[in-house]
Amino acid sequence: MDKNKERNLSLLADFYEFTMANGYLMKNMENKVAYFDLFFRNIPDNGGFAICCGLESCISYLKNLSFTEEDVKYFKSKNIFSDKFIDFIRNFKLEADIWAVPEGSVVFPGEPLITVRAKCIEAQILETMLLLLINHQSLIATKASRIVRASKGRAVMEFGSRRAQGADAANFGARSAYIAGCIGSANTLADRDFKVPALGTMAHSWVQMFDSELEAFKAYAETFPDSTVLLVDTYDTLRSGVPNAIKTFDEVLKPMGIRPKGIRLDSGDIAYLSKQARKMLDDAGYEDVQITASSSLDEYKIMDLLMQGAKLDSFGVGERLITSKSSPVFGGVYKLVATEEDGKIENKIKISENVEKITTPGFKTFYRLYDKNTGKAEADLITFKDEKIDDSKDLEIFHPIHTWKRKTISNFTAREMMVKIFDKGNLVYKLPSLEEVKKYTESELDSMWEEVKRFEFPHQYIVDLSQSVWDEKTKMLNERNYKKKY
Amino acid sequence: MDKNKERNLSLLADFYEFTMANGYLMKNMENKVAYFDLFFRNIPDNGGFAICCGLESCISYLKNLSFTEEDVKYFKSKNIFSDKFIDFIRNFKLEADIWAVPEGSVVFPGEPLITVRAKCIEAQILETMLLLLINHQSLIATKASRIVRASKGRAVMEFGSRRAQGADAANFGARSAYIAGCIGSANTLADRDFKVPALGTMAHSWVQMFDSELEAFKAYAETFPDSTVLLVDTYDTLRSGVPNAIKTFDEVLKPMGIRPKGIRLDSGDIAYLSKQARKMLDDAGYEDVQITASSSLDEYKIMDLLMQGAKLDSFGVGERLITSKSSPVFGGVYKLVATEEDGKIENKIKISENVEKITTPGFKTFYRLYDKNTGKAEADLITFKDEKIDDSKDLEIFHPIHTWKRKTISNFTAREMMVKIFDKGNLVYKLPSLEEVKKYTESELDSMWEEVKRFEFPHQYIVDLSQSVWDEKTKMLNERNYKKKY
Repeated sequence: MDKNKERNLSLLADFYEFTMANGYLMKNMENKVAYFDLFFRNIPDNGGFAICCGLESCISYLKNLSFTEEDVKYFKSKNIFSDKFIDFIRNFKLEADIWAVPEGSVVFPGEPLITVRAKCIEAQILETMLLLLINHQSLIATKASRIVRASKGRAVMEFGSRRAQGADAANFGARSAYIAGCIGSANTLADRDFKVPALGTMAHSWVQMFDSELEAFKAYAETFPDSTVLLVDTYDTLRSGVPNAIKTFDEVLKPMGIRPKGIRLDSGDIAYLSKQARKMLDDAGYEDVQITASSSLDEYKIMDLLMQGAKLDSFGVGERLITSKSSPVFGGVYKLVATEEDGKIENKIKISENVEKITTPGFKTFYRLYDKNTGKAEADLITFKDEKIDDSKDLEIFHPIHTWKRKTISNFTAREMMVKIFDKGNLVYKLPSLEEVKKYTESELDSMWEEVKRFEFPHQYIVDLSQSVWDEKTKMLNERNYKKKY
Repeated sequence: MDKNKERNLSLLADFYEFTMANGYLMKNMENKVAYFDLFFRNIPDNGGFAICCGLESCISYLKNLSFTEEDVKYFKSKNIFSDKFIDFIRNFKLEADIWAVPEGSVVFPGEPLITVRAKCIEAQILETMLLLLINHQSLIATKASRIVRASKGRAVMEFGSRRAQGADAANFGARSAYIAGCIGSANTLADRDFKVPALGTMAHSWVQMFDSELEAFKAYAETFPDSTVLLVDTYDTLRSGVPNAIKTFDEVLKPMGIRPKGIRLDSGDIAYLSKQARKMLDDAGYEDVQITASSSLDEYKIMDLLMQGAKLDSFGVGERLITSKSSPVFGGVYKLVATEEDGKIENKIKISENVEKITTPGFKTFYRLYDKNTGKAEADLITFKDEKIDDSKDLEIFHPIHTWKRKTISNFTAREMMVKIFDKGNLVYKLPSLEEVKKYTESELDSMWEEVKRFEFPHQYIVDLSQSVWDEKTKMLNERNYKKKY
């Protein structure tokens, strides 16, 4: 699990994180405490929600964050870093307080996924890696969940390693896809390291390596009688592949008393071929033999195949999952929301001509409000950390921009979504197992209305600000409103 | 450079590579030699060419390929691998012959980028990592080259780490972008490990950390007088940011006798803001101070900004470069093209109902034909490895599908593009330095006509098959033509 520790990724940070830390030190601001929120603004593929993944990797990174003598040498070679900075780097030890939503949580734009409270010099240098890990893994989990939902109960296998954007993308992508509902991955390393079940059939090269397709199929069935899935499209799916597969089942597996597992279609008109292949298999007495499809699949192609009545039992999904091809960026950001000096917290805001880039100030958390009758999530409410939600009585919430849009929530339970992960640099969170994260993700999805989960114009789930947060944000915006001297 | 060696990525392979290797061993086929071609079918973003990157990573992976006792234990735990396979894995030592195009080469669909000649059990297990590395790094180099070309001589900086698909995507993406023409990266690790120059300015958090924007700017200029680039959009670009920047230049840098470097625009209407900011800077006597833009840029946005007359001197490009957002998959494949037993080579083909998925059989190489007068590349010719091109006389080449399209090349030089990298498992290739690769890439681009480099409907560069290769492919297709028993 902790494979990150073998690598020194402490320098995987934007160079400006270090120059800014150096600047804070030079200005004797190192004891100023900063609060940073990690949040995102847009849901990939215009979906209704995202699945937050990457926390385990963040914890691994944070636990092992330190700088080697090689790093120190590197900074010195730049000739712009002060001795004070070099000392800081050499003696670096995580001291931050960090809160986060559990891995596998359903999350929405604007919600803090991670909040870091630390000396500004420390909080600043965590930015790049926390963003990179959460952005990548949330992206893949969110995409995989869409593909799994489109498959309507059929198994989805992650087959994308060869098209992943680097080795980490393959490994952590496989893990994120598994969390989001895939049954396993072709990536062997993800099995060894994370216990994501390794899956696979055969390549075209296996078939080509033999003098004939039939010989190749028979050799495979003899070698792996209990897991025989034959790839039938090397030469001609219906005239050669499927007949040879049936012949192999008859001549190799039947005498052994073993039922074959399936065939795989990897090219051509999958809808048509699957129907024809299904009929041929059924006619030969192999009604239980499954048909797997692969070939640039994603949620849209799978929905379309199923709409056409394709006879498919499972899907191997590659490049379009492992890169989230139709929406390959998860745009998480890491923004300063408050500072603290001598125990006094000062809220901070970033204003922008792009209104959606304006930040929400203050040290915050957020609650999910569940209807007690249905168990479904009705709304999220972003509050200051020290606000309490009283779920014993009705609660009126309102839209943060169209404030006349009001809703009274009654008969609900409020659940705080963020949990403490690090306390003064010490890990205080018990990491769940991968299977626990996968189960949790499933329960998170179950708590969402179908309207939020659809692909086209999903219902916009309510994420409101508490009255106090809204008041503070409005006050700060008005103060800044082009009147004040900067 | 060789950071991969610290990691055991030998299991980053599709599970079926190992089950197939096991199968070959069970069938006593382990001495059968396989020839695999790694090639791609489509150019990202419908461009005119791709830049092949990733060879250095492939070499690092191959040199360090071996299996640990942990790996052996893993395979044993699966209960499907034979003792013979376990022995093979435990004693694995690379024995392959491998040819490849140098890193930074301009390449086209169908051309072998890597050819592996090895025992089938060995060649098979290299598939996933070779594809992953070449696919990812070629993708980013190809995208970065487009963005650099759109910038028309202005500097492009790679700023995407935080949105990269994992840590490797950030590191090797920074390296690939640099090879393709970026001047550096924000990623500090890529500087330490690869010597990609680290670049950066300041974040909004720096500005927010101080009581006022002016104070923040002055503190920065005092700390880094020689590299002052101020981010001017935290509150209000024209009413606050630019005036405060000018004030800082006047009050902090001018007395020191230092010329400021620049300002950065990160939101709002960059075209408009850049023109206004340029005027304000010019009026204040800072005609030489540069304006940098960042904010979800790519080649299209940059072309559009320049068309509008935006006053920009350099670009910081993030998520759309580091994920190749508009086209995030490089579809390289690894296909069996021949086998060899007792010294006899047998060519192999994969047929498909998707015509573009049909492979070109045989042990091959390819030549680039340059016009002696212009120095420009006129066409590529894929040949069998043992064919020789006589460039002392005219050469007639023809389109591999529309065979009536013929062209006579005269007064040319022929350059074989593939070089030998491994001989019987030993590295026989001298790796060029990063700077040499970058220079080579530049010369590769210089050798291409502008028509091939344009974005919209680029000229389709000629990639033909030699008569012998064409004859063999046609013969094999006709033999397979639904007549033969498979």
